[in-house]
Amino acid sequence: MIGIKSIASYVPTAGLDNYVQGAKFGKDEEFMFGKIGASFLPRKAEEQETSDLCVEAAQALFASNPDLDPQSIDALIVVTQNGDEEGLPHTAAIVQSKLGLSTRVAAFDVSLGCSGYVYGLYAIKGFMEAAGLKNGLLITADPYSKIVDPEDRNTTMLFGDAATATWMGENAVWNLGQARFGTDGSGAEHLKVSDGKFFMNGRQVFNFALIKVPAHLHELLDASGLKSSDIDAFCIHQGSAAIVDAVARRFEEQHPEKFVKDMLETGNTVSSSVPLLLQKHMLDGSWKRVAISGFGVGLSWGSAILYRD
Amino acid sequence: MIGIKSIASYVPTAGLDNYVQGAKFGKDEEFMFGKIGASFLPRKAEEQETSDLCVEAAQALFASNPDLDPQSIDALIVVTQNGDEEGLPHTAAIVQSKLGLSTRVAAFDVSLGCSGYVYGLYAIKGFMEAAGLKNGLLITADPYSKIVDPEDRNTTMLFGDAATATWMGENAVWNLGQARFGTDGSGAEHLKVSDGKFFMNGRQVFNFALIKVPAHLHELLDASGLKSSDIDAFCIHQGSAAIVDAVARRFEEQHPEKFVKDMLETGNTVSSSVPLLLQKHMLDGSWKRVAISGFGVGLSWGSAILYRD
Repeated sequence: MIGIKSIASYVPTAGLDNYVQGAKFGKDEEFMFGKIGASFLPRKAEEQETSDLCVEAAQALFASNPDLDPQSIDALIVVTQNGDEEGLPHTAAIVQSKLGLSTRVAAFDVSLGCSGYVYGLYAIKGFMEAAGLKNGLLITADPYSKIVDPEDRNTTMLFGDAATATWMGENAVWNLGQARFGTDGSGAEHLKVSDGKFFMNGRQVFNFALIKVPAHLHELLDASGLKSSDIDAFCIHQGSAAIVDAVARRFEEQHPEKFVKDMLETGNTVSSSVPLLLQKHMLDGSWKRVAISGFGVGLSWGSAILYRD
Repeated sequence: MIGIKSIASYVPTAGLDNYVQGAKFGKDEEFMFGKIGASFLPRKAEEQETSDLCVEAAQALFASNPDLDPQSIDALIVVTQNGDEEGLPHTAAIVQSKLGLSTRVAAFDVSLGCSGYVYGLYAIKGFMEAAGLKNGLLITADPYSKIVDPEDRNTTMLFGDAATATWMGENAVWNLGQARFGTDGSGAEHLKVSDGKFFMNGRQVFNFALIKVPAHLHELLDASGLKSSDIDAFCIHQGSAAIVDAVARRFEEQHPEKFVKDMLETGNTVSSSVPLLLQKHMLDGSWKRVAISGFGVGLSWGSAILYRD
């Protein structure tokens, strides 16, 4: 059974002091810490392409897993909506070449935003199992610095650039359990790019998350025959501190602290936010069962149970 | 086991007389028929979006399968590199809304070109099996009329607009057998979009197909324990008449006619070319075992065996 063997990441060291940026828009540090949730927003260099972020994350994965031979990689999915080129070719092909992987790699991009890692896990696991493949890379890289208008106060204080790489294969430490997914294209207009600029209706997206995500997590638990007390931690998309806090409160008044919040140095990194949490808090920890949830652009959402024996 | 239950398509009735277009570039009808392979190139209307083509194909699928309740669809993949919006949201979300599907649909886009249907089959089958989903729509729609320069003689005579919809589910007539995939991003430059215009190095792409595809099909047959005589038909991407003929000749001198060529009224419809062949020639025919192959943008290629009991 294909599962999660390892996760690595690349977070640019350069970036924006978000308190300084907040002050420009009349926001104090209390607001930036408590509502936005990020004091620093990593930013890729101008000349770094999306594929370069993918390569950095994959190389970090190879460095931390000497037992993973890069030449054994036979599946590669890049989750992005801000790839290198104008639609074609797909970024995964460019990453194959830059990493010097074998040409016997099945590579494609999955177009999803903040829900993308949850979908991506099941897409790569399923694809590998259906096609008989053995070692997969699930990469997330969606640098919103390409599309966010630095003068747009609704978005420029939120998003950070990052990339993650997840090694998928047999004999994994973490297995994929039940999952639930959803899509509502009637809300597509709330998060979209027009004329090269990103637009977000923050109020609509906040309400969507607050209504949808706690209910979806409860539905997932019910379908899995689990209670919230069976879950060691909830690693949900870090849209903003306010969103994580509100979802946690609405879901479960008893233990909102089980909703991990860790975005102070990264901001909202789109599809990289969940794997960043898992890398930092799940892989080497004592948890046995974790619920993940991603939600955003589409509108699209997905939630899943990860567990180990 | 999830397999192919039905395939439907949408081919715009409006379009270009390709003999007239050929004459403009000094090409006679013999060349247009024998080398290009298309006398007519369907073109979507200016106001039709990619999602509209998807909707037309899906509605044709629903019309021909009264036993498929649209509200039972729980997985939706759109294969495209020319979606509705600028990167985000994904076209699959817009299709979910336009079709009025349930919001309990897992929907995402797969970014691939002419190899996309082969990958898409294993991506949706695998995703559905990994996530426990029951009724999937695999849609292809990559209208190159959005990006082809009508003055570019290397591309404007080749591409037609179309969309297909494949119903994936249990108790399927056609099952997915062995598959093989490959990617070589070092050739990405041979097929790409720059400044909104599509560029193709036809000579390089022709050579790539001629060298890669026959060898890949032989490798697939070997891995499957099959001989070419075990295959009733080869339904490969209809890049051009010259490509199909050359691949057929190089693969198997004995029976090149087993390589189906049917693109006269459609041209090269990118990821829709293989499912168009399957819909027309495989579904209601007597074949028991078919090999499919897609190849193009990336560079990317994929080949697979489809069979029925």
